[in-house]
Amino acid sequence: MLKNRQTIRRYANRPVDRALINRLLTEAERTQTMGNLQLYSVVLTEDPTQKEQLAPYHFNQPMVRQAPALLTFCADFHRVTRWCEEREADPGYDNFLSFLNAATDALLYCQTFCTLAEAEGLGLCYLGTTLYSPQDIIRILHLPRLVMPIATITLGWPDEQPAPTDRLPLSAILHEETYHSPTRADIDRDYKPKESLPENQEFLRINDKQTLAQIFTDLRYTRRDNEAISQTLLATLRQQGFLEKE
Amino acid sequence: MLKNRQTIRRYANRPVDRALINRLLTEAERTQTMGNLQLYSVVLTEDPTQKEQLAPYHFNQPMVRQAPALLTFCADFHRVTRWCEEREADPGYDNFLSFLNAATDALLYCQTFCTLAEAEGLGLCYLGTTLYSPQDIIRILHLPRLVMPIATITLGWPDEQPAPTDRLPLSAILHEETYHSPTRADIDRDYKPKESLPENQEFLRINDKQTLAQIFTDLRYTRRDNEAISQTLLATLRQQGFLEKE
Repeated sequence: MLKNRQTIRRYANRPVDRALINRLLTEAERTQTMGNLQLYSVVLTEDPTQKEQLAPYHFNQPMVRQAPALLTFCADFHRVTRWCEEREADPGYDNFLSFLNAATDALLYCQTFCTLAEAEGLGLCYLGTTLYSPQDIIRILHLPRLVMPIATITLGWPDEQPAPTDRLPLSAILHEETYHSPTRADIDRDYKPKESLPENQEFLRINDKQTLAQIFTDLRYTRRDNEAISQTLLATLRQQGFLEKE
Repeated sequence: MLKNRQTIRRYANRPVDRALINRLLTEAERTQTMGNLQLYSVVLTEDPTQKEQLAPYHFNQPMVRQAPALLTFCADFHRVTRWCEEREADPGYDNFLSFLNAATDALLYCQTFCTLAEAEGLGLCYLGTTLYSPQDIIRILHLPRLVMPIATITLGWPDEQPAPTDRLPLSAILHEETYHSPTRADIDRDYKPKESLPENQEFLRINDKQTLAQIFTDLRYTRRDNEAISQTLLATLRQQGFLEKE
């Protein structure tokens, strides 16, 4: 099953039963979590008006409007903080460690949910754009202090069957005992198969680039964008209470 | 299967076949990843000397020395940066967004690996301590610039069968369309079952505390520790090249 998994961006015109979503979200709660605090929450978007509001901040990717359901997974220390307030405990979770702990919980939970959903035959697409416009998503979803959106999933019944994309050989990823920085020969061995794929060759031609790596550095994930978004992200963490005000 | 999953801290005295670990790590590569860049790497620790070195930084939890294998999952932009350097591309990934993107990739990959390993009957424990002493782990595992350890898993064949621990009801986690901050009544509804568990009542008695929340705020995850570790984390991100030097 997993061997053939692929991101699904086109969905059948058929709702995803709420009982099914609830069952999968509940089962995914078995995922390990820090101190069993479950430092995450999920905002479910089914209302077309809400989808319309969110779409521009996910770069108007068509699946945001087309998918029957969107799930925004959030790092959440708000709920635990509220619990503490109601229980005469003094919470100290407005800091960067707490953000990373909650983001970890949210991402592990999200991935278990994805695995379960795909095992049911559902298709999904993970939207990395959530980190690009966090302040607008926070506004639209009414996220309070100590809640930070981390990942959005579009979910539906597949209406396409794309071929699995390539992956690096394990030699690129696995290090025994200590990390070994890849030599030029390692890079050639691990990346040449990817670089030789016809679709990647075509990318170079269309974009008038010499190497596949330049597609990433010059077009898809540029230094300029990365640095601007990094500033937004840090400002948003500050706004949400996860970084000290300097 | 997932319904009964539980963290395993005691392992049988029996190795985990390397071919099995490699197969599971390879299968887990199907996990979605940013731009298909696979911004993660894994350092496998089997050498007892290395386990001995790492143990203190995981608070000497016994499973670190006892488990046949430790896997440290890292956010990794070093490999992609090396690729760019070998391909006349100018990488711009020494920033906070790139760290979060790589940490996301690493955590999603880690969780798929965990699900696959548990489906094979393996047991594992997720060590959150990786974020507590990142600089020592970086030193012991020889992690270069743009690699940050994010999660460690101890892995082995189970030698215990603990009962599943409690989880919050879905009402605590799921928000429809917009986030709704929990009222006092919501907190009572969602947390009272946990607070009433005999083992949690016993915790209060042993530690002379009035509420379960105080166990977390006063003993397990204190403001003082959280704030100190936050500073270490930010300094380590700076050291590894993921935060601008101010």
